[in-house]
Amino acid sequence: MTENMLFLTELKPEQEQKINNLGVHTFHREDLGEEIEPSDITILVGWDRELGPKLVNDPQTKLKWIHAISAGVDYLPLAEMAAKKILLTNSSGFHAEGISQSVLSYVLYFVRQLDTANENKQLHHWKPQSEQRPQVVKSFTYVVFGTGHIGQEIARLLKAFGATTIGINTTGHPVQYFDQTFPLDQLGPDVFKAEVLINALPLTDETHHYFNGDLFNQFDQIFLFSNVGRGPSVNTTDLLHALDTNQIEHAALDVFEEEPLPAASPLWDYPNVIVTPHMSGIVEHFTDAQFKLIWPNIQSFIQNGQLSINEVNLQKGY
Amino acid sequence: MTENMLFLTELKPEQEQKINNLGVHTFHREDLGEEIEPSDITILVGWDRELGPKLVNDPQTKLKWIHAISAGVDYLPLAEMAAKKILLTNSSGFHAEGISQSVLSYVLYFVRQLDTANENKQLHHWKPQSEQRPQVVKSFTYVVFGTGHIGQEIARLLKAFGATTIGINTTGHPVQYFDQTFPLDQLGPDVFKAEVLINALPLTDETHHYFNGDLFNQFDQIFLFSNVGRGPSVNTTDLLHALDTNQIEHAALDVFEEEPLPAASPLWDYPNVIVTPHMSGIVEHFTDAQFKLIWPNIQSFIQNGQLSINEVNLQKGY
Repeated sequence: MTENMLFLTELKPEQEQKINNLGVHTFHREDLGEEIEPSDITILVGWDRELGPKLVNDPQTKLKWIHAISAGVDYLPLAEMAAKKILLTNSSGFHAEGISQSVLSYVLYFVRQLDTANENKQLHHWKPQSEQRPQVVKSFTYVVFGTGHIGQEIARLLKAFGATTIGINTTGHPVQYFDQTFPLDQLGPDVFKAEVLINALPLTDETHHYFNGDLFNQFDQIFLFSNVGRGPSVNTTDLLHALDTNQIEHAALDVFEEEPLPAASPLWDYPNVIVTPHMSGIVEHFTDAQFKLIWPNIQSFIQNGQLSINEVNLQKGY
Repeated sequence: MTENMLFLTELKPEQEQKINNLGVHTFHREDLGEEIEPSDITILVGWDRELGPKLVNDPQTKLKWIHAISAGVDYLPLAEMAAKKILLTNSSGFHAEGISQSVLSYVLYFVRQLDTANENKQLHHWKPQSEQRPQVVKSFTYVVFGTGHIGQEIARLLKAFGATTIGINTTGHPVQYFDQTFPLDQLGPDVFKAEVLINALPLTDETHHYFNGDLFNQFDQIFLFSNVGRGPSVNTTDLLHALDTNQIEHAALDVFEEEPLPAASPLWDYPNVIVTPHMSGIVEHFTDAQFKLIWPNIQSFIQNGQLSINEVNLQKGY
């Protein structure tokens, strides 16, 4: 049977040629209803809030495999896909380089006091050396929630700066570059002495609003809270309260409960908060990097209907 | 003979006690003319633009050793000190941790486009993901001018991010963490293909205004120029011109030809320039770290009049 592959993402001509050479037909959004009926699509790359559910829910759908360009797949109709035996791959690992470097950019920004420098720059004010005491990375202990590709790469970079790292995962199993690890539902007292919290967890029932006032208050003092995982893992009202009471001194947020972040959100106006528009995983060579990830799966899928890397367990959601 | 040690820097009571236990008298600025005559000071820690020259030039001076809390010693009267056989130690190595981490904060700030994020934050503007293409650290090649403690620690951190590093030193001798090295007066074509330039050179006759229009123009395109060495190594007029013509896309400056940077300097107003007030070498645990550096020298100086680490060659100036 011929595979009909719909790309909602960018594809270079030479990449498309390589796929066509395997006998796979490739289509783009504008071809739907013209060159091919939506229900004849067998492989979907990328997602679209309107088109995606339409394809999955179509009673005539021939969809067999969806490739998500994200690591988290919480926005996909996983139950429906499981019922229809539609396979799913994600881009786990793909975003680790960009996200980890964005996290280090946030950490160094506040540790080396670029926030103060930027404020004084606007005032043309030269703050005397004697009034400055910037920290270094290893002045703090870092708790990374999530020890997959992203969390591990964050920890690897932090270790290069000599920092102490604690990893949080489902079972508390040890992971390279983490000095200690704890299970998500059993944080030890060492965790609450840490000053920097970084969320890189997938969104599941267990992690929804996991970062709330109760959790924040168990920490002695939070120098920095960074969210590069998923917006709904954070209770935004509680986060704002923790910022207002200085329980959290700085925050760096790439994801939000509501995206795009509404123009009226108070988060835009906190001088001690970095806001980036869900971009920490983006890298300049995005198209090439994505092709590198999806190419082995296209080959194996054509050969034997199997996926060789990054298949998601639809029950677990990651 | 009793040593009289004047501290123009901070000293903790327990540190002072340790020194006194060696039979060394310790004094502070307010003791001069009260508890001790300035000409009776034999060891000076730190420097002061008025008091320093007064002590060195005093015909009755008993000064035998000056310890500078900086790595560069260009601001000291080296010839006068050589004539009077006053020894000099610097704090080479001491600033490497802070400076290298500040450099990485500058690099990551522009590479991960926090500058754009900060601009859009002020406007409450959510820039769509499709319009973003932030780079990663290894997208660029880095030339570090100066391969001493500071340059080497910068290169070590850049290598942890997978970057290509080129080191520039006097002779072009190889140094760990640099993929290639070249002599200062003989930069090869590979150097001019690099996109990030970092100055960590001491100020000498050879490095005065070394970073000028002629040098900048030999590079294909400069993504970032950072100066954490000395202000006068840069021709500021040429730097402004290179920024105006976009030959240099971003700059991160910690040192300036005139310090404090005058409020009227145009550098304050460039949105693509980070200005920090000669603070990149500062770390929070400054006093302890300085004591750790000076303590072995105090011990050896008392024992045999010699200095065990960080002695500066007064002719070379480093």
